[in-house]
Amino acid sequence: MSDIGNPPRTGADPRGSFVLVIHGGAGAISSEQTRPEIEAKYRAALKAALKAGHDLLKSEGTSLDAVSAAVRVLEDSPLFNAGCGAVLNSAGGVELDAAIMDGATRQAGAVAAVKHIKNPIDLARLVMDGSPHVMLVGEGAEAFAREQGMAMVPQEYFITEHRKKQLARIQRELEAGPQQQSTGQTDRATDRFGTVGAVALDQHGNLAAGTSTGGIANKKPGRVGDSPIIGAGTYANNATCAVSSTGQGEYFIRAVVAHEISTLIEHRGLSLSEAAERVVRKELVELGGEGGVIAVDRGGNIVMPFNSMGMYRGYVRANGKTVVEI
Amino acid sequence: MSDIGNPPRTGADPRGSFVLVIHGGAGAISSEQTRPEIEAKYRAALKAALKAGHDLLKSEGTSLDAVSAAVRVLEDSPLFNAGCGAVLNSAGGVELDAAIMDGATRQAGAVAAVKHIKNPIDLARLVMDGSPHVMLVGEGAEAFAREQGMAMVPQEYFITEHRKKQLARIQRELEAGPQQQSTGQTDRATDRFGTVGAVALDQHGNLAAGTSTGGIANKKPGRVGDSPIIGAGTYANNATCAVSSTGQGEYFIRAVVAHEISTLIEHRGLSLSEAAERVVRKELVELGGEGGVIAVDRGGNIVMPFNSMGMYRGYVRANGKTVVEI
Repeated sequence: MSDIGNPPRTGADPRGSFVLVIHGGAGAISSEQTRPEIEAKYRAALKAALKAGHDLLKSEGTSLDAVSAAVRVLEDSPLFNAGCGAVLNSAGGVELDAAIMDGATRQAGAVAAVKHIKNPIDLARLVMDGSPHVMLVGEGAEAFAREQGMAMVPQEYFITEHRKKQLARIQRELEAGPQQQSTGQTDRATDRFGTVGAVALDQHGNLAAGTSTGGIANKKPGRVGDSPIIGAGTYANNATCAVSSTGQGEYFIRAVVAHEISTLIEHRGLSLSEAAERVVRKELVELGGEGGVIAVDRGGNIVMPFNSMGMYRGYVRANGKTVVEI
Repeated sequence: MSDIGNPPRTGADPRGSFVLVIHGGAGAISSEQTRPEIEAKYRAALKAALKAGHDLLKSEGTSLDAVSAAVRVLEDSPLFNAGCGAVLNSAGGVELDAAIMDGATRQAGAVAAVKHIKNPIDLARLVMDGSPHVMLVGEGAEAFAREQGMAMVPQEYFITEHRKKQLARIQRELEAGPQQQSTGQTDRATDRFGTVGAVALDQHGNLAAGTSTGGIANKKPGRVGDSPIIGAGTYANNATCAVSSTGQGEYFIRAVVAHEISTLIEHRGLSLSEAAERVVRKELVELGGEGGVIAVDRGGNIVMPFNSMGMYRGYVRANGKTVVEI
């Protein structure tokens, strides 16, 4: 249940070195997902995401571009709960949330409840770079995307057979089990799995974070989780760290998880590892929330703690060796 | 440009005592608003909001109910940029955001981009109490409101002649001044005025915060500001304080203003006044953001700092004497 990542590099001059960390969601991994041929697919997708980001970082690309590139690969994979393959809401549709934040300027962009955007992480970036706003939601966000020349995709692009079956099963279970009807949520942690995210430190010493998700299966239409909330699911600040969260979004919003990790470093003098461990294993647990985070600081230290059964995660440094863990 | 509220009450046993603080927005106050008969209307509305909350608090009502009651009065007044009288977006429509948070449980509810909800603060409360989610946006939020039996109002209910003229003027100015077209925003601080909010400590020793707004005049449809973002515009935690923000929402989101004030108390040991002053006058200013906050801590200390030209604000304690400042 623990992963502190590789040994700390505190005090190292980050200039010239770089690192990218990604996650593909935290929760319980289903027995289907542990089948060797399926697990191999997950590992391949995570490696492809790491490679896409690494290619940019090694040629002095920015952490923002690397984060976007890695998240885009995971959005395009039907395996994860983001972009193609996202979970379905209670009405059987897909609504997507994403955010990105630049640690150098603390500029940020976020979108929520969008239905026709192939890569929500790109639209979040466009909100940051091309509008006076930080967050756009729903039809307004899509109108902005069209204005900016972004191609729209139909809902069918996102919807997989796997997710249709998942929704049917959840709704059957809720009908059968009256004690679950009060919340409208399934108790299966597998149904909350698969948000994707990335954090990076680039050769210029700048941090960035990005997160993208379809939310929780059987969510109410219009529900927004922590991923697109700056400070909860996504946060980056060169003075402290970059964080991307995954888990039960409602708890992550209430605990302001990503910003809390940053402030423990800034105001209490904790290390990245101490701060992230405290928030994920103590503060979130006290509130009742399950999930994990990935984070990187300016020194290139990384951390990937989670309090759930599992978390798809991986990282790559300047040497190009990709490490993927489940 | 400063207001620390009345003298600190640190160490006082809050049991039996209570306080409610409200704001009606920060920014520049127009010359129209300084006309005595208009200013009297603002003062009367703020006093009515304080009285509504005070009536509940004195009969041992909860801080959550008092915050809702005070915000509801300001939403119903056409003077403020919330509910009836809210600013218009670039398409000439009204889209409303609101949030509420309970400091005792850190439960929260938020809505954004709703178009037919008379009192968005009530829908935020309903999301908190009657759904498994923290945040619902757009049509999904309105579908939930209908499910819960909430009455819908037409857009015309919200739209005032004053706001139509304001939008026409802003759009004329943007056409005339090409340097402003890049951001699509007016430079007039009066056009960002009028978000409303309340924070309270009740006789049970519990804190709560609530905020409601129409956002920024001429905003893009779908734009969400800081008000409904837990940690940015609204935050409450019995361990620290309750905060409601008002100002340039994009900066408040990036600085995670409300949670930052809380963490300066929790992790750096600052007083409420030190924490709020530091965030509003230093951290926000460094980022370029204008506005203010109201906040209360468990000891009944209150603070109302702002770095803008003015802020409508007021408070009332157990003695029932309402204090209103502009």
